[in-house]
Amino acid sequence: MQKIINNPDNLVDEMVEGFLLVHNNIVAGTDNPRVIKYKDAPVNDKVGIVTGGGSGHKPAFIGYAGEGMADAVAIGEIFTSPSANSFYDAFHAADSGKGVACLYGNFSGDVMNVKMARELAEEDQTNVKTVIANDDVPSSPKNNRENRRGSAGEILMWKVGGARAALGGDLDEVIASAQKAIDNTRSVGIGLSACTIPSVGKPNFSIEPGKMEIGIGHHGEPGMETVELKTADEIASLSLDVILPDYPFSKGDEVVALISGLGATPLIEQYVYYRKVAEILKSKGISVYRSFVGNYFTSLEMKGVSLTLMKVDEELKELIDYPTDAVYFKQQS
Amino acid sequence: MQKIINNPDNLVDEMVEGFLLVHNNIVAGTDNPRVIKYKDAPVNDKVGIVTGGGSGHKPAFIGYAGEGMADAVAIGEIFTSPSANSFYDAFHAADSGKGVACLYGNFSGDVMNVKMARELAEEDQTNVKTVIANDDVPSSPKNNRENRRGSAGEILMWKVGGARAALGGDLDEVIASAQKAIDNTRSVGIGLSACTIPSVGKPNFSIEPGKMEIGIGHHGEPGMETVELKTADEIASLSLDVILPDYPFSKGDEVVALISGLGATPLIEQYVYYRKVAEILKSKGISVYRSFVGNYFTSLEMKGVSLTLMKVDEELKELIDYPTDAVYFKQQS
Repeated sequence: MQKIINNPDNLVDEMVEGFLLVHNNIVAGTDNPRVIKYKDAPVNDKVGIVTGGGSGHKPAFIGYAGEGMADAVAIGEIFTSPSANSFYDAFHAADSGKGVACLYGNFSGDVMNVKMARELAEEDQTNVKTVIANDDVPSSPKNNRENRRGSAGEILMWKVGGARAALGGDLDEVIASAQKAIDNTRSVGIGLSACTIPSVGKPNFSIEPGKMEIGIGHHGEPGMETVELKTADEIASLSLDVILPDYPFSKGDEVVALISGLGATPLIEQYVYYRKVAEILKSKGISVYRSFVGNYFTSLEMKGVSLTLMKVDEELKELIDYPTDAVYFKQQS
Repeated sequence: MQKIINNPDNLVDEMVEGFLLVHNNIVAGTDNPRVIKYKDAPVNDKVGIVTGGGSGHKPAFIGYAGEGMADAVAIGEIFTSPSANSFYDAFHAADSGKGVACLYGNFSGDVMNVKMARELAEEDQTNVKTVIANDDVPSSPKNNRENRRGSAGEILMWKVGGARAALGGDLDEVIASAQKAIDNTRSVGIGLSACTIPSVGKPNFSIEPGKMEIGIGHHGEPGMETVELKTADEIASLSLDVILPDYPFSKGDEVVALISGLGATPLIEQYVYYRKVAEILKSKGISVYRSFVGNYFTSLEMKGVSLTLMKVDEELKELIDYPTDAVYFKQQS
């Protein structure tokens, strides 16, 4: 296992320690070692934004803490939900009294723990509402959209919800904007190689050389099909075949596009892939309002990419454009 | 070869095309397809900052174009120097009449092509001066420092030179600050696995599972020694053993630390590694003024990290802190 680690049992704690040392101009620790917060949280008279999830997706989730995005983040073990207690502590770290929007992904552990955390929060009159991201198209048929997993679309949900909160929205308004963001968003992942959970020591699935998996999940969940590895242009086309008809995105639409490498995919390949995505969208009369390319939501050292599109209207454009100073999401205009 | 590419011959052109589509709020193309520039370059009454190098190190080099860093960047093939003509065109794209500081790394191809580009520039009275980064400690003994390669320390050189230019420094002042930055900087790379140049189709070197290479170069150049893979803490300690005595950094010094993943190293491992680097520095009475952790200077999908330390004084601290809005280096304060 070619990894730069110590005892896997201490991996997440040591990672958080390093993270806080580097980024102490933006984030701070809390009494719970599995909760970090924006250093100025709770922000007076602002709805608190909370998220959380398993580790191994860096910069998600902790990298999105900061001004204009998440106020507090609950941290799980590798590919494992944070505890209910950590979500609960994150609510308190984020709440200025105006309520908390917990914006997270649809994974059974996270759903269960957020539910328990909300029950704890009700007892002390902390007002928490949630949006559950389910943008990962291949994970369930369209008539079962509520069963779909969250994917890199979560980043756009945090961006939109965070901006609405920063602009003074109340809890219902923040929830409505974040829900609209994720309802307008579709993602698909393409896997070219597996990853290894450090405590396990070997990959828990495999992709043969020369093959790729369309629709792979962020934890290596099996996709729609395994096919011969294709060219970047063909992969871009196949990716769009999955998500365009699902929303559906169509001529005249404006979209935000987010391409994320899954960990070991060089940026050079991500740009080559995006080039073709942009070309196909243009040919279909769909215009790209803004695009993001980089390692935004990873799966340890998996090779592959995810493609996320969000249809935008004037409201979503304003919120996407709003300045942000999170650790891994900085936007000045 | 598990890569998302089309014809390898078109890889760099397609990458540049995608890059310009995504980041057109910061950068723009030029008449030379192998030169990109900060969209507002040349900036009136400011020394132009130029760099350049082979592709495959993303976000280096093109990701460091933007306000406060590079004005124009020459682009080579994978692991290959840009042409003399591209460096020359980059000089023109950056020059407002106040001269150009070409800040680049010590690789024979780059040195030769920059030299030829300067000769061309002399003919039309473009004033170009250079700083050649040689921060990679293991690449040559200390008494042959001028033979050492450039490494991730180049990023700090661009940051410092770029800030001095933005603050109104003349060409000699920009060169002096950039030279001071690199003279105060030492780097070492640790490799855990190799990478594959797309046009070659297989790794041009190998690191056996269970081994690691101390002192590896950014193109897989052999390091000082191949040893058993150690823990993150031990690797941090070994890395510091290479660079601390070389400068030497000692008790009472203040440093900027930059950890870069080499491509396929999850951020989680980079933070675990940095945590120990910080602990050892503290124990030696060396204080970290600022730190950077992430994929700043990669080698395609190589696994491993590089550690860079720069000793800072009041001047270098001011220049490192200066706001920057490059594509991959954004700093608001």
